[in-house]
Amino acid sequence: MHYADRLHAAVRTKGNPCLVGLDPHPASIPAEFAAVHDAGASRAEKARAIGDFLCQVVELVADRAPAVKPQSAFFELYGADGVAAWERVVGAARAAGLVVIGDVKRGDIGSTAAAYAAAFLGGEPGADAATRCDAVTINPYLGTDSVRPFLDACEVNEAGLYVLVRTSNPSSAEFQATGEPPLARRVAAAVEAWGAELVGEGGWSDVGAVVGATHPEELAELRRLLPRTPFLLPGFGAQGAGAADVAAGFGEDGLGAIVNSSRGILYAYERRSETNWRDATRAALDEMAEQLAHAIAARH
Amino acid sequence: MHYADRLHAAVRTKGNPCLVGLDPHPASIPAEFAAVHDAGASRAEKARAIGDFLCQVVELVADRAPAVKPQSAFFELYGADGVAAWERVVGAARAAGLVVIGDVKRGDIGSTAAAYAAAFLGGEPGADAATRCDAVTINPYLGTDSVRPFLDACEVNEAGLYVLVRTSNPSSAEFQATGEPPLARRVAAAVEAWGAELVGEGGWSDVGAVVGATHPEELAELRRLLPRTPFLLPGFGAQGAGAADVAAGFGEDGLGAIVNSSRGILYAYERRSETNWRDATRAALDEMAEQLAHAIAARH
Repeated sequence: MHYADRLHAAVRTKGNPCLVGLDPHPASIPAEFAAVHDAGASRAEKARAIGDFLCQVVELVADRAPAVKPQSAFFELYGADGVAAWERVVGAARAAGLVVIGDVKRGDIGSTAAAYAAAFLGGEPGADAATRCDAVTINPYLGTDSVRPFLDACEVNEAGLYVLVRTSNPSSAEFQATGEPPLARRVAAAVEAWGAELVGEGGWSDVGAVVGATHPEELAELRRLLPRTPFLLPGFGAQGAGAADVAAGFGEDGLGAIVNSSRGILYAYERRSETNWRDATRAALDEMAEQLAHAIAARH
Repeated sequence: MHYADRLHAAVRTKGNPCLVGLDPHPASIPAEFAAVHDAGASRAEKARAIGDFLCQVVELVADRAPAVKPQSAFFELYGADGVAAWERVVGAARAAGLVVIGDVKRGDIGSTAAAYAAAFLGGEPGADAATRCDAVTINPYLGTDSVRPFLDACEVNEAGLYVLVRTSNPSSAEFQATGEPPLARRVAAAVEAWGAELVGEGGWSDVGAVVGATHPEELAELRRLLPRTPFLLPGFGAQGAGAADVAAGFGEDGLGAIVNSSRGILYAYERRSETNWRDATRAALDEMAEQLAHAIAARH
């Protein structure tokens, strides 16, 4: 089954398009995962504590959210120990039935891109398929031949991609919004073209675009221009975008977008009144799901 | 000491600007590293064999080349085992006095970029500083705030960066050569600006640019436009660029560029007459050094 169809089946089952970002910022991890905060702990102990925390998050959200997005940087921070934790968290999320989007933002020339595609989407020699991701984020700067190995891997492994188009950070306009037409618009057109060969039963492609929810007008315009490209929308919550901002990213069928929140869910305990982090995380996720349901319904 | 000064001291000591790319393509690794080619070997065994091979390469080139560039993708292919091999190879290269440029091409929003910068350039909690890189490659698509954490890490750790500007692959023009001025030109100007705060004693910045030697005219133009930005020039050898093509990337002082060859050195045994891979690798490196010396001398 196409990635897009699997993802949308999960969105329908869970009743919301929430993507829980697994960004283990060391400073924010609850105190009970003590090794992370212990200057005397070894790298392996710190990485294990992060894996423990995120495996518990996976358990907490598995019945509520369709998908999770581990952020590779915070694992790579602990070197080989961190990557072992990544594999454990990815494996736990897949075993729990969650769609796993590896936020790796890789991009390189052909033969190297093929190695990255194999590493994250399947095909790595001697590895356990249980730790593959369902989809990854990639960077388009190098052009089509850097994307091709990922497209091929998607076809073989029923996997998906999200190509950076218009990111959510303050500097994103610097290169992405310049040129005529602007770079992000040209990349967007390429994404729709790359995805033409990988369209699922529901009419959505396996090749998606990352579009910051912090740019609601561009988001609406891109939704019109890219009718079959699913969006991954970062920027909700901590980065300032609200449910109404992201609503424009969804298609007429109420699908075609997933909305990421990382700190807003994982570290909800830092700002909410619940007495423990688990309750705060669940409540924050439920609240986000409800806000999105209202906003999407209000639009259609 | 600034990264740029350390690199140039190594270039002067070794008498050449060769950057040996450590890209462990599984299919090309010499047969004596048997686990790589054994379908029955475990992932850990394969990764260890790749580490063994590259540690031997490091030993072979340490007295001849100033720098090596491990390519992360081919290590990540083996997951946590591969990253353990990466750390071993980086550690061996640094211990041998080689400048190590981690070819990771990362790029992400601020807090995530900070985690990548810490992972590769230093500051990772509980880690061994011996496995840090001297410099890394990064992708500029997300703009200045995605680069800032790397600049800060360079200042603290006396490290360097090479920002993708104009890559060597066939599709590189698709986005990089479009817009007015073209994207690569705008990124190049940003690179020169980012580097202004990190200029070493020799007048060269710690913030470099990746410019494919496969575009010799643009390379000459970028050298004129970016007088203090050092270049990392891929594309020599296997990708088609010759010594004369790269010569335009050097400054008046004969410095300011390093020239990468990966397959041309590592897998020289596949096309040369020497009877073992070690002799072929050494001979290919010596030949490249000589070609570059002639081409750079002919230019000045």
